[in-house]
Amino acid sequence: MNTIGTLLRLTLFGSSHGPGVGCVLDGVPAGLEIDEDDIQREVDLRRPAMSIGTPRAEADQVKVLAGVRDGFTTGAPVVVFIENRDTDSSKYERFRTVPRPGHADLTALNRYGETVDLRGGGQFSGRMTAPVVAAGAIAKVMLSTIGVQIAAYTQRLGRLVDEEERYLKEVRRASRENPVRAADPGLALEMVNEIMAAKEEGDSVGGAIRCLAVGLPMGVGEPFFDSLEGELAKMLFSIPGVKGVEFGSGFRSAEMRGSEHNDQFIVEDGEVRTITNHAGGILGGLSNGMPIDLRVAIKPTASISREQKSVDLERMEDTTIKVEGRHDPCIVPRAVIVVEAATALVLADMCLRGDFIAREHR
Amino acid sequence: MNTIGTLLRLTLFGSSHGPGVGCVLDGVPAGLEIDEDDIQREVDLRRPAMSIGTPRAEADQVKVLAGVRDGFTTGAPVVVFIENRDTDSSKYERFRTVPRPGHADLTALNRYGETVDLRGGGQFSGRMTAPVVAAGAIAKVMLSTIGVQIAAYTQRLGRLVDEEERYLKEVRRASRENPVRAADPGLALEMVNEIMAAKEEGDSVGGAIRCLAVGLPMGVGEPFFDSLEGELAKMLFSIPGVKGVEFGSGFRSAEMRGSEHNDQFIVEDGEVRTITNHAGGILGGLSNGMPIDLRVAIKPTASISREQKSVDLERMEDTTIKVEGRHDPCIVPRAVIVVEAATALVLADMCLRGDFIAREHR
Amino acid sequence: MNTIGTLLRLTLFGSSHGPGVGCVLDGVPAGLEIDEDDIQREVDLRRPAMSIGTPRAEADQVKVLAGVRDGFTTGAPVVVFIENRDTDSSKYERFRTVPRPGHADLTALNRYGETVDLRGGGQFSGRMTAPVVAAGAIAKVMLSTIGVQIAAYTQRLGRLVDEEERYLKEVRRASRENPVRAADPGLALEMVNEIMAAKEEGDSVGGAIRCLAVGLPMGVGEPFFDSLEGELAKMLFSIPGVKGVEFGSGFRSAEMRGSEHNDQFIVEDGEVRTITNHAGGILGGLSNGMPIDLRVAIKPTASISREQKSVDLERMEDTTIKVEGRHDPCIVPRAVIVVEAATALVLADMCLRGDFIAREHR
Amino acid sequence: MNTIGTLLRLTLFGSSHGPGVGCVLDGVPAGLEIDEDDIQREVDLRRPAMSIGTPRAEADQVKVLAGVRDGFTTGAPVVVFIENRDTDSSKYERFRTVPRPGHADLTALNRYGETVDLRGGGQFSGRMTAPVVAAGAIAKVMLSTIGVQIAAYTQRLGRLVDEEERYLKEVRRASRENPVRAADPGLALEMVNEIMAAKEEGDSVGGAIRCLAVGLPMGVGEPFFDSLEGELAKMLFSIPGVKGVEFGSGFRSAEMRGSEHNDQFIVEDGEVRTITNHAGGILGGLSNGMPIDLRVAIKPTASISREQKSVDLERMEDTTIKVEGRHDPCIVPRAVIVVEAATALVLADMCLRGDFIAREHR
Repeated sequence: MNTIGTLLRLTLFGSSHGPGVGCVLDGVPAGLEIDEDDIQREVDLRRPAMSIGTPRAEADQVKVLAGVRDGFTTGAPVVVFIENRDTDSSKYERFRTVPRPGHADLTALNRYGETVDLRGGGQFSGRMTAPVVAAGAIAKVMLSTIGVQIAAYTQRLGRLVDEEERYLKEVRRASRENPVRAADPGLALEMVNEIMAAKEEGDSVGGAIRCLAVGLPMGVGEPFFDSLEGELAKMLFSIPGVKGVEFGSGFRSAEMRGSEHNDQFIVEDGEVRTITNHAGGILGGLSNGMPIDLRVAIKPTASISREQKSVDLERMEDTTIKVEGRHDPCIVPRAVIVVEAATALVLADMCLRGDFIAREHR
Repeated sequence: MNTIGTLLRLTLFGSSHGPGVGCVLDGVPAGLEIDEDDIQREVDLRRPAMSIGTPRAEADQVKVLAGVRDGFTTGAPVVVFIENRDTDSSKYERFRTVPRPGHADLTALNRYGETVDLRGGGQFSGRMTAPVVAAGAIAKVMLSTIGVQIAAYTQRLGRLVDEEERYLKEVRRASRENPVRAADPGLALEMVNEIMAAKEEGDSVGGAIRCLAVGLPMGVGEPFFDSLEGELAKMLFSIPGVKGVEFGSGFRSAEMRGSEHNDQFIVEDGEVRTITNHAGGILGGLSNGMPIDLRVAIKPTASISREQKSVDLERMEDTTIKVEGRHDPCIVPRAVIVVEAATALVLADMCLRGDFIAREHR
Repeated sequence: MNTIGTLLRLTLFGSSHGPGVGCVLDGVPAGLEIDEDDIQREVDLRRPAMSIGTPRAEADQVKVLAGVRDGFTTGAPVVVFIENRDTDSSKYERFRTVPRPGHADLTALNRYGETVDLRGGGQFSGRMTAPVVAAGAIAKVMLSTIGVQIAAYTQRLGRLVDEEERYLKEVRRASRENPVRAADPGLALEMVNEIMAAKEEGDSVGGAIRCLAVGLPMGVGEPFFDSLEGELAKMLFSIPGVKGVEFGSGFRSAEMRGSEHNDQFIVEDGEVRTITNHAGGILGGLSNGMPIDLRVAIKPTASISREQKSVDLERMEDTTIKVEGRHDPCIVPRAVIVVEAATALVLADMCLRGDFIAREHR
Repeated sequence: MNTIGTLLRLTLFGSSHGPGVGCVLDGVPAGLEIDEDDIQREVDLRRPAMSIGTPRAEADQVKVLAGVRDGFTTGAPVVVFIENRDTDSSKYERFRTVPRPGHADLTALNRYGETVDLRGGGQFSGRMTAPVVAAGAIAKVMLSTIGVQIAAYTQRLGRLVDEEERYLKEVRRASRENPVRAADPGLALEMVNEIMAAKEEGDSVGGAIRCLAVGLPMGVGEPFFDSLEGELAKMLFSIPGVKGVEFGSGFRSAEMRGSEHNDQFIVEDGEVRTITNHAGGILGGLSNGMPIDLRVAIKPTASISREQKSVDLERMEDTTIKVEGRHDPCIVPRAVIVVEAATALVLADMCLRGDFIAREHR
């Protein structure tokens, strides 16, 4: 359903072409200083970059409808609303009869029937992630009170991969300076070209996002089912287009030997830490004090302007479709801030659950 | 925590070296025929195979304590208990002072303090998956009433990969006939050798498990956060050792173009299906009628008999540790049935939530 | 927190003197016909009646922001927003120092600290029930699809009690025709006088509301903890001012013998029913096919204009307070529709959980 | 379903005439000292007293299967199991055809069908409360770490009422010294006679239980839906036979004026408290530092040996039934400790949620 979280609970609402999209974030402690400009800045990072993004020009103006007063949280649920303004629904009626490959049209129709709202993807739209980013901005403020920082970047875009080990600070700075959210300026340029090339071919391209979180204390997470990996993965897989989630060495672990994979312990500056971080900062479902290191695979945008095979649901016969309309040839750059937000929301909830962030004013 | 699921709710309990492990499975419809021998057979598939497994010889005798009467479910929660018999806890006290790399010793100690039970991994032990398999056997019966079948196999073991496309029926049959749960007898032999080689070197080896589910109707899953991928991933990441989860083309999607990745629709035998299945049977978080196709990465067993660096927590100084005791050089083969069970439990819950399986006798 | 329900999930937000109040209702099946005027009419029933109510003149204009398109639900969460317009917050600052007896000022301050919003009761305000009524109107539509109807009335107001057995149809009609929501016109007049008398004395008065639901099939409810009584009570106790909830003969059961209390079975028109309904339509936590019959006790409004003892929290010394401002001398009449809505929301959720209402278009 | 609680989560299992009854209590902090004899003593308080109770002679021997080691909690879920030994199921088969008035036979049959277990009431049996008492004993230990104490007593039994104001300490001591759990020895004698009289007439008798909790800090509880009243009521209504729950002046509030009902504040010993406690210790759903004061109505036992009207479900015709077998003429005395346990479980959960009890060892 549209609610997630245990003590920090996010409820999402709206649809791509309705009046707007928004969310309720319940469980935010009272007394937290919230700068609405900061929220807006995060949401702006999700907007499409000129030339490589969709021409849909949404201002994405964030309105805080509740839970914040005079710049501080009151303890009541925080509500964010973002109006939809630049909607063009003219092209979507047809997808009720001829569903787009790679989209939820067919499954949504099957499940919700005639009255389903398919315009712009309805409640399955990537636009639903705009309020997630706004909520994530608040979660980041919660996390900052205990020194936790999060940064993500585009690690792969089609065949281009960033193989370098990266540190949070450089990631944070660099990824905000180029439109593809790459950690390396040179690679960023190549990635832009890759997207442009796909676009020119009427095609789209996928990628992978890596997200780091540092400063998380040891012991965050809950055995057995509410492991940090499990909670993060559940949230991350709700982002439209995500097809894989891995932690630390992830799928490469499958090829490794234990002697290589085990992160051995040392004492450093009076603290126990590990020499490597193949575990991605998580052992037994709990944080181990090392950086959280996760990776998310994003499929190429389903909307492409090439002709594709589809079916006419009324006649039950084969046909073809060309998906015109406004769409991104690559959603990876825009998803970077969403992955950060999703990660922040889960970590903040798990920190509340483990008493690492105080719930109450006292 | 130790409960998962919405309408089919699994609660896990016990620890590796306590009296036993077990679970409560709530929400099982009444009137379902349950053969306890079938449950036992599934649980037996999780037992270590001679020579490639741990020498810990647990009978894993399943006792059904509630919810089944005269071979039929009553509608009350089903309770399963499996006694621990062959426990040897002598070697675990030391890990309170010198935690094992790759294990939850340090994080568990940090979180639960002095009274934590680390014996055999305590509540973080892979042994907790034995009752999951028993519960999964019941979920499979629920799913079979609507024609859903599930089968998993070892697709990768260290450097050995099964690149073939596989179908559920062959997977189901073949994987039960060899100790590594491979879908191909020839590859099975090589995998056994790979494990033996690691064992001889005092080392361990990782792998990947692929799981298929066929017969699932279109529309199973819940937008936004309770997507099929999200719910499956959360459950799968609770299995100790899992470091990655992907669906369909998964991380390979990141390298693909949309024109390649999109599964185009055709009409076949009067039904809409897709030509390819890069989506892994899921669109918009809902099943699309194609087989569910997922892959799980398993890290190499953390317990290895080689000397590793660790720390002495009392003196806060570096030291080394050799983890003696009884352990598997590779848990992948034993995890195959666990992945099946986890998948079955989530699918059965989601089928209840979507009214695809009737909750009530009526 | 601010979310309740399992398959029909209500999330409430806003505060008495912020921009507005609203809710997200998730889990409403697609394809349901929703007349926004009907919702507005229900919400209007909650507005204060001239002369016996508060002078705060809120239009309570309901805006549906999502989930309904062209008069039908889409399957996405339904969002309702009601602006606050007639707020006068001038008098509330003082309650931070001198809390009002019977209000949540002191507990809210203690819990949320300085930044809490106490204006008009903040998130503890009875105004939070306006969106509950709107959501309840949708739940009633869901229930009407299976023939369930709900009606409540003021059964007691101060010392005035309606001792008559009442039937749903008369209750439904009569209670909407007088400002105190009484089932009997003569008694209604006396009740108005009772309220006017209290008001003139600068005082307030309590009461009790009885709610009936007919047409509920047998078997709705979940053993053990999610009993129909338990789920209803949890929801009903969230209504500000409720101090007691009972079912059937309720507290009178304590004085009864089993031979008197047991509802004996008979066959009538080919159906099993009970001769009496001391159980209030619920046996073993499940509906038994008889009308649901519950009663809710409402305390007298805490805001009275008489002088009361309170404390000065800054000086920690005794003082007195007179609560000026705009308030109802009796909230019972306005709470009647809220009790109906709360009951409808729970019954609709429980009907979804038990497959009595279809979740999906199929 | 059979799980309740957010951070302290109770899962109940078993049935009256199966192998036994038990529970899983998840979320108990590690390092808590647990004396199994204390648990046993609490469970023993639920056993029927000679002469006024059922002749079913269950030893109710509590076995702790997990979560406690060497007398301390480990942080893993605590599991309790109580074997059923003295079961006599011979008389229950008949109730499949002729359901007992006041019991769940008919609703259970309707919901679960042929394979339902009706023996002894199955999963609807009062016997399910035995593990609740065991879990409550652990919750009491949790609460005692922050100075919270709980005690309940039989305040009403049929027409006999205890009108005295009572204090926790006397209640705790006195109620354990007589078989009816009355707070007054003289009244206890009368209550025994009342039960004996009902028994001799082949009848049963109801009553009311009052429960007090002192020492709870201000601010426990969650707005809006997870109010202290709501959470307590949901738990209390799961106890078989409960028909009403009220807090403070409860249903008497309905007859009161605000000037009488409002609890006015004073400063006493440097603390803010109220002169009266009509609110029952709760304002705005949060504890206000005064004693929690609640009352529960219990219906007379449904099993009576008098002839009652029922129906033959096979022939669908009227018939009569005399419920022979072993049952209590009054369950109120046995329910007293259950009400204490239920209250303790909710308060402990809410204290965890509000950070009043530490979740973690640190």
